[in-house]
Amino acid sequence: MSEAVSTLDGWYALHDFRSIDWNAWTSLSDSDRAQATEELLSLLAEYRRAEADKQGSTAFYSIVGQKADFMFMHLRETLEELNELETAFNKSLFAQVTIPTYSYVSVVELSAYMAKPGSDPMQDPEIVARLKPTLPQTKHICFYPMNKRRQGGDNWYMLPIDERRAMMRSHSMIGRSYHGKVRQIITGSIGFDNWEWGVTLFADDALQFKKLVYEMRFDEVSARFGEFGDFYVGNLLDEDKIKRMLAV
Amino acid sequence: MSEAVSTLDGWYALHDFRSIDWNAWTSLSDSDRAQATEELLSLLAEYRRAEADKQGSTAFYSIVGQKADFMFMHLRETLEELNELETAFNKSLFAQVTIPTYSYVSVVELSAYMAKPGSDPMQDPEIVARLKPTLPQTKHICFYPMNKRRQGGDNWYMLPIDERRAMMRSHSMIGRSYHGKVRQIITGSIGFDNWEWGVTLFADDALQFKKLVYEMRFDEVSARFGEFGDFYVGNLLDEDKIKRMLAV
Amino acid sequence: MSEAVSTLDGWYALHDFRSIDWNAWTSLSDSDRAQATEELLSLLAEYRRAEADKQGSTAFYSIVGQKADFMFMHLRETLEELNELETAFNKSLFAQVTIPTYSYVSVVELSAYMAKPGSDPMQDPEIVARLKPTLPQTKHICFYPMNKRRQGGDNWYMLPIDERRAMMRSHSMIGRSYHGKVRQIITGSIGFDNWEWGVTLFADDALQFKKLVYEMRFDEVSARFGEFGDFYVGNLLDEDKIKRMLAV
Amino acid sequence: MSEAVSTLDGWYALHDFRSIDWNAWTSLSDSDRAQATEELLSLLAEYRRAEADKQGSTAFYSIVGQKADFMFMHLRETLEELNELETAFNKSLFAQVTIPTYSYVSVVELSAYMAKPGSDPMQDPEIVARLKPTLPQTKHICFYPMNKRRQGGDNWYMLPIDERRAMMRSHSMIGRSYHGKVRQIITGSIGFDNWEWGVTLFADDALQFKKLVYEMRFDEVSARFGEFGDFYVGNLLDEDKIKRMLAV
Amino acid sequence: MSEAVSTLDGWYALHDFRSIDWNAWTSLSDSDRAQATEELLSLLAEYRRAEADKQGSTAFYSIVGQKADFMFMHLRETLEELNELETAFNKSLFAQVTIPTYSYVSVVELSAYMAKPGSDPMQDPEIVARLKPTLPQTKHICFYPMNKRRQGGDNWYMLPIDERRAMMRSHSMIGRSYHGKVRQIITGSIGFDNWEWGVTLFADDALQFKKLVYEMRFDEVSARFGEFGDFYVGNLLDEDKIKRMLAV
Repeated sequence: MSEAVSTLDGWYALHDFRSIDWNAWTSLSDSDRAQATEELLSLLAEYRRAEADKQGSTAFYSIVGQKADFMFMHLRETLEELNELETAFNKSLFAQVTIPTYSYVSVVELSAYMAKPGSDPMQDPEIVARLKPTLPQTKHICFYPMNKRRQGGDNWYMLPIDERRAMMRSHSMIGRSYHGKVRQIITGSIGFDNWEWGVTLFADDALQFKKLVYEMRFDEVSARFGEFGDFYVGNLLDEDKIKRMLAV
Repeated sequence: MSEAVSTLDGWYALHDFRSIDWNAWTSLSDSDRAQATEELLSLLAEYRRAEADKQGSTAFYSIVGQKADFMFMHLRETLEELNELETAFNKSLFAQVTIPTYSYVSVVELSAYMAKPGSDPMQDPEIVARLKPTLPQTKHICFYPMNKRRQGGDNWYMLPIDERRAMMRSHSMIGRSYHGKVRQIITGSIGFDNWEWGVTLFADDALQFKKLVYEMRFDEVSARFGEFGDFYVGNLLDEDKIKRMLAV
Repeated sequence: MSEAVSTLDGWYALHDFRSIDWNAWTSLSDSDRAQATEELLSLLAEYRRAEADKQGSTAFYSIVGQKADFMFMHLRETLEELNELETAFNKSLFAQVTIPTYSYVSVVELSAYMAKPGSDPMQDPEIVARLKPTLPQTKHICFYPMNKRRQGGDNWYMLPIDERRAMMRSHSMIGRSYHGKVRQIITGSIGFDNWEWGVTLFADDALQFKKLVYEMRFDEVSARFGEFGDFYVGNLLDEDKIKRMLAV
Repeated sequence: MSEAVSTLDGWYALHDFRSIDWNAWTSLSDSDRAQATEELLSLLAEYRRAEADKQGSTAFYSIVGQKADFMFMHLRETLEELNELETAFNKSLFAQVTIPTYSYVSVVELSAYMAKPGSDPMQDPEIVARLKPTLPQTKHICFYPMNKRRQGGDNWYMLPIDERRAMMRSHSMIGRSYHGKVRQIITGSIGFDNWEWGVTLFADDALQFKKLVYEMRFDEVSARFGEFGDFYVGNLLDEDKIKRMLAV
Repeated sequence: MSEAVSTLDGWYALHDFRSIDWNAWTSLSDSDRAQATEELLSLLAEYRRAEADKQGSTAFYSIVGQKADFMFMHLRETLEELNELETAFNKSLFAQVTIPTYSYVSVVELSAYMAKPGSDPMQDPEIVARLKPTLPQTKHICFYPMNKRRQGGDNWYMLPIDERRAMMRSHSMIGRSYHGKVRQIITGSIGFDNWEWGVTLFADDALQFKKLVYEMRFDEVSARFGEFGDFYVGNLLDEDKIKRMLAV
């Protein structure tokens, strides 16, 4: 039996991807479309207020390609609050012209592979800020879920802890070399959703997503042990862009 | 040929996940919505009566994310009774605004790896209570199906029984260390559904699901032999929360 | 090149799983529902007549869980007859409220691994009866398709015939130990459908399905070489139960 | 780097599987149904004329089970012609009550593993006839796509050409032993569709499909290197049978 | 840790596959169909203008088989522009009779395996032209996504850079031998979509796609390390062919 490394857990996360049913949208009357847009904007304003009150955070991005038209990434203190956000959205007029396409349930997580022994990390304000972050508003977002492989000779969970720690250190050094270019939020989903982790990346230059993920793929921890789900990439949606996207 | 370990089997289980068609729900008239809510509540009252009569047990939870909006976990003496529960629900007005998304058929199971030799376990009231349990009403539920791997050098079913027993003992000790935090109900589904077992966890603190499943993943029996299906996590639905969820 | 073992082939089989569109069903007028029920019962009566005339056999069971609401297992002399049964059903009023969910095309098969050399098995009335069986009317049915694995060191089709024969013998002895509890009908589907065999089990006690399949899983032929598709389990539908299931 | 073996390529092939929307079909007026049937028959007559003019060939079969209700196999000189056949069908009234379920794009192919060195095969009228065949009208058809495996020690494309040639020779001898019973048309789809080859078998006795594919499975080239997609099996549809299938 | 090879990245690419809902199309009034066709043609004219202004490039092809009826391949400077193209299309009348079937997000990429050391490739006009290409208008297109395998002994990302470079050189020599017959555009999608690369091939003779991909499959880099997604093949759509395709 190998040794588990404990994690630090912060806010719960719900990634919520949806497509617009454009036939339904263009078939609405002008006034229904105006009302639906208004409802969406007032939901977003509500999310901003919760963010200002430090009760959570929400990112809102369009998605490129057919996998979805847009996505929310919601952070909240409890699973109940995430559930209530979903339900409130589902009852809105705007939701009636959308189709759910994918979602992901997880919790903001810091791995303790790098923890300083002897200190209580929850007393460290920087760590608390990373566990309950205000999501950045970069121009682009990237999301993908992943597992650590357990297959024949490539079984992460059978490795001695020191080997895992050494590999994670090398891995995190690649991440750090993108400091200022890519902000990375890891969320843990073991027991919550179908993969073990979600990775959400924020950047103003979308090409940095490719460079970072590509460089990491040659790192042993990804090369031998990384298994990846679907990748989503998108563009920031502010009020102007929302209105332009929805204008008929 | 390796040696099978016999199991103790209790009530049959049906996990029944469904989504709400919110367009249909918000399009119903107020009185139809009231009637549909009433029908749901009276079905739930019926399930509670069966529970009080020790004829079975039912858990009712919302699900976080798009995989489903809610789920029933029904326990009954026979497959026929489970089938009748399904059919009765399907004929209700409320069912008409729901979409089935996933289900799982299994039977409450205690593995005999730990059995005391020479005793008849069915004479042990504690064991009978575990085979025909009243489901807890914790704040959260977690469900996932799983297999034991049969792949090249990692073939559970080719291992000698003593090796399997030793691994299962270590595994169950992790489970026990969560005593008081996570209640675990194992249901066997070989011959009934697509995976070999279903795991249903109950906890008041959802984070304990993640901690338990993560810790177990480093245990050899999971690390080398565990294969997992979709994970579902949810929140308890009592009458108040049902009404709030369905209020338009 | 390994040596193929010839098989004995009997009636063609069509397993036909369908769900009921309960919204459509409850929306029908009472008289349409009565007519649709009548049409279903008269199709079933037709199947019974074919059975009485030794022209085939049909089993009709409800299915537990969301994979389907009911299934037919039809046996007939030719693929054309099976096709005609499908088409006739599809034109019925009852079919209009059903949704096809899964089907399987195969042929009743006896493997010749155990054949006595020198005898013509088709002269043996017992063998002919097993190739063209009247399906039992047990309380429960179980169906799953399967393959023999061809993967790296676990390649069934590369094994010498004697090794295969020895494993099949041990395997069939488990099956025989369930004599009187589980009736097993093997249908071959190589060239007809996506798996190599279909397994249909009949029992009055559904738990025997689990015990049998679980015990077999430790047998080398399943442990190393068995790959399994979806499992379906169901309850016998007689005229009374059909009427109760369909009553609104 | 292993050595590729060049192939001889003939007509392009489109396998086009469709289901009938029986609710839509039975809801049409009698005259619309008559017109739709007429349109289908006149499309088939057009295909027969192209066949008579040696401009291609078309097979039309019903499919047993829920995967499809019928299929066309079209052979034509160019991909553009296949595209036009699709579009013309899609605009017909009959197409409006059908649902596309699967298709396969490939080209009739003869492997050159067996070619006589020094001769120009395209001067051989027998070879040309096999590359641009008139499809047989046997009572049954079988279709499945396949790959040659590239996995660990079982990597077809890493084998020396002589080893591949020896295995293909043994393989084709099984095929030849079914001469007169099963006609086999191989179409290549590398670069055109998701598998590397399509296999279409024609026989008057459907059981011969099973015998042939089963026997081949023990041959090393299939046992170690064959990966198979979905299998379809069907019955010849002539004008009489079409009318019977569509009569309400 | 193996060494990553940096890439040169040009325009972002969106491959956008769609099917026509032929029932909806044939149900439109003649004037709606005329207007929808007009809207499609004017969108295409807009794409041509962007191409003339060197702001991007667009290919428009029909697709053979049921996977899609047509596809756009759009190249643009930013992900935002690609998103706007999608949204504008989705609001058109023509889009209302189409069904999205698949899409792919990537960026035109030149691998630096072959780069001359010491030179700045972005100063080389030939390289810039390959990174921001005007797409050819050949008669046929072929698209498929692919990964480099990371599995047991066949793990591309664990190989020393020199071994990878040697294999890529051999691979590119096959590509070059098709010079004048097949134009190949590689787009990188790590971090953007579900596979690592997209391959788009252009040729006047569709058979060259098969020959090229087949020949490459025997090359070690494909044989051992290539994993492939769905293959799409299609025919050029000019204004005439569009009108013929859409004429009812």
